[in-house]
Amino acid sequence: MRITVLAGGIGGARFLRGVRAARPDDDITAVVNTGDDITLHGLRICPDLDSVMYTLGDGIEPDRGWGRDKESWRIKDELATYGAEPAWFGLGDLDIATHLVRTQMLDAGYPLSDVTAALCRRWQPGVRLLPMTDQRCETHVVIETNDRGRRAIHFQEWWIRHRAAVPAQAFVQVGLDDAEPAPGVLDAISGADAILIAPSNPVVSIGTILAVPGIRDAVVTARAKVVGLSPIVGGRPVRGMADACLPAIGVEVSAEGVARHYVARSNDGLLDGWLVHETDTADVDGITVRAVPLLMTSDDATAQMVHVALELAHAN
Amino acid sequence: MRITVLAGGIGGARFLRGVRAARPDDDITAVVNTGDDITLHGLRICPDLDSVMYTLGDGIEPDRGWGRDKESWRIKDELATYGAEPAWFGLGDLDIATHLVRTQMLDAGYPLSDVTAALCRRWQPGVRLLPMTDQRCETHVVIETNDRGRRAIHFQEWWIRHRAAVPAQAFVQVGLDDAEPAPGVLDAISGADAILIAPSNPVVSIGTILAVPGIRDAVVTARAKVVGLSPIVGGRPVRGMADACLPAIGVEVSAEGVARHYVARSNDGLLDGWLVHETDTADVDGITVRAVPLLMTSDDATAQMVHVALELAHAN
Repeated sequence: MRITVLAGGIGGARFLRGVRAARPDDDITAVVNTGDDITLHGLRICPDLDSVMYTLGDGIEPDRGWGRDKESWRIKDELATYGAEPAWFGLGDLDIATHLVRTQMLDAGYPLSDVTAALCRRWQPGVRLLPMTDQRCETHVVIETNDRGRRAIHFQEWWIRHRAAVPAQAFVQVGLDDAEPAPGVLDAISGADAILIAPSNPVVSIGTILAVPGIRDAVVTARAKVVGLSPIVGGRPVRGMADACLPAIGVEVSAEGVARHYVARSNDGLLDGWLVHETDTADVDGITVRAVPLLMTSDDATAQMVHVALELAHAN
Repeated sequence: MRITVLAGGIGGARFLRGVRAARPDDDITAVVNTGDDITLHGLRICPDLDSVMYTLGDGIEPDRGWGRDKESWRIKDELATYGAEPAWFGLGDLDIATHLVRTQMLDAGYPLSDVTAALCRRWQPGVRLLPMTDQRCETHVVIETNDRGRRAIHFQEWWIRHRAAVPAQAFVQVGLDDAEPAPGVLDAISGADAILIAPSNPVVSIGTILAVPGIRDAVVTARAKVVGLSPIVGGRPVRGMADACLPAIGVEVSAEGVARHYVARSNDGLLDGWLVHETDTADVDGITVRAVPLLMTSDDATAQMVHVALELAHAN
């Protein structure tokens, strides 16, 4: 069976471990958000792709959920001593090796999808990782300035430096108009037997993937059923700061709110099924909702959700 | 007084510590070889500039003489795990931070001389460091292939990977024709009260500096006396592998041989004075030779040589 998953970083990575555990013999493709990507200190950094790659390759720092296990931070300190800005981004030493390889390949002309495949030859994630696009398409956050004007800062500056504490007025993807799905993305969607939307940030992860011209249409017209998992449990994100993102686009921070957001924008039938946590409810026209435990406390627990999601994808 | 020193890496760095110790209140400029420079893993590496900068800035690994003190090698191991070539160059973690800052500034369009000045704001070497040129002008080594043909490999490949054990047929500087002295170099030479040639490799360090169009002429026509220190003691290089370089250009591996090489190429009076080790002799027409202890065992020992060299520079 071919399973295609739309995924962001940390949550997406953990979800994908569950998919792999649930369906070890299936052909699993992850279409990963690259809107968080950024170039710092001359290094091209793809936080979500790396979180997924390290997590599936058993190289992740398990508690933090991002970056390498047994990481050190000597270069970060050195760069700060040189006065090299910015100092707020967590660039680990081991992680920098990944960025060096990626940056050099990109500079040599290889597209990000090829670079990702090359990096994965080491990590053997057991899942095919595709960037949503090979073009640079970076999320920026519109914030209000002190004099009531507006300016846009890179998502990472908002997320990491400001801890998403500055109210977001809007999210814009710089480069979106010129972006196209990376090679393999549309085929993975149209050829899938099931399409799963990971419990990732609905705005800056899943929303960004779906905003790449052609991807949302491909999901809607795919022959497979599309089943999503709510990243909101009990009115709060399980992890991350989706509650700082959803209000900016007028979406209620609830399991039902996110489902309505996914389907309602164009009422195009994006979702067929929706999994909410056992203590939540959702009632959205045209989609089947199931309530199950949605906390990804272990690969087994996540695999259970995946089994239910796939059941919905077949049954509907 | 203005003292200008032509210098390579490790030996040049130690010599410059002695110059600084001997003349702490003088205006000292080092014109440093950049023929050893190389781009690896997308990083621009300037081994001689860094050896001088780290040594004068008290950041050098003292026994090895190159690279940073308390260095670690995690990224090097990671790059090897990715299969990223070459694996034979010693890229330390702390060192990589320097290369990241340099590479990013060069990519932004700053010339190497500006980058070097920026890096030195941290290290405060107490000596003005100038690259010999802002252009890429990299030394390559012509070697014989198995089928008796010839090919040129980068100096670092010959020096580090092959430990200079493959016989060198010739040394060529790629980019030499387009190279010009970096800003400040010609002024530092013409305005100097004394010009010292460090006991660095006469072929691939000092020879390369002098080969940059305009530099040798500037040294010859400078109003200051020019005094060199022999890197050869008892028929062998004190350090490094000059004995693998000198025969390739037909120069005898001796204190006298090197002096003759410096002056003889065009008999242009490049040298006014020459310091040899106390157990050596040299007899070269037109230059004053002094025999003194030439082992740089401490800054004080080196400062003693510098005092004698400056004496020669004034007395002649």
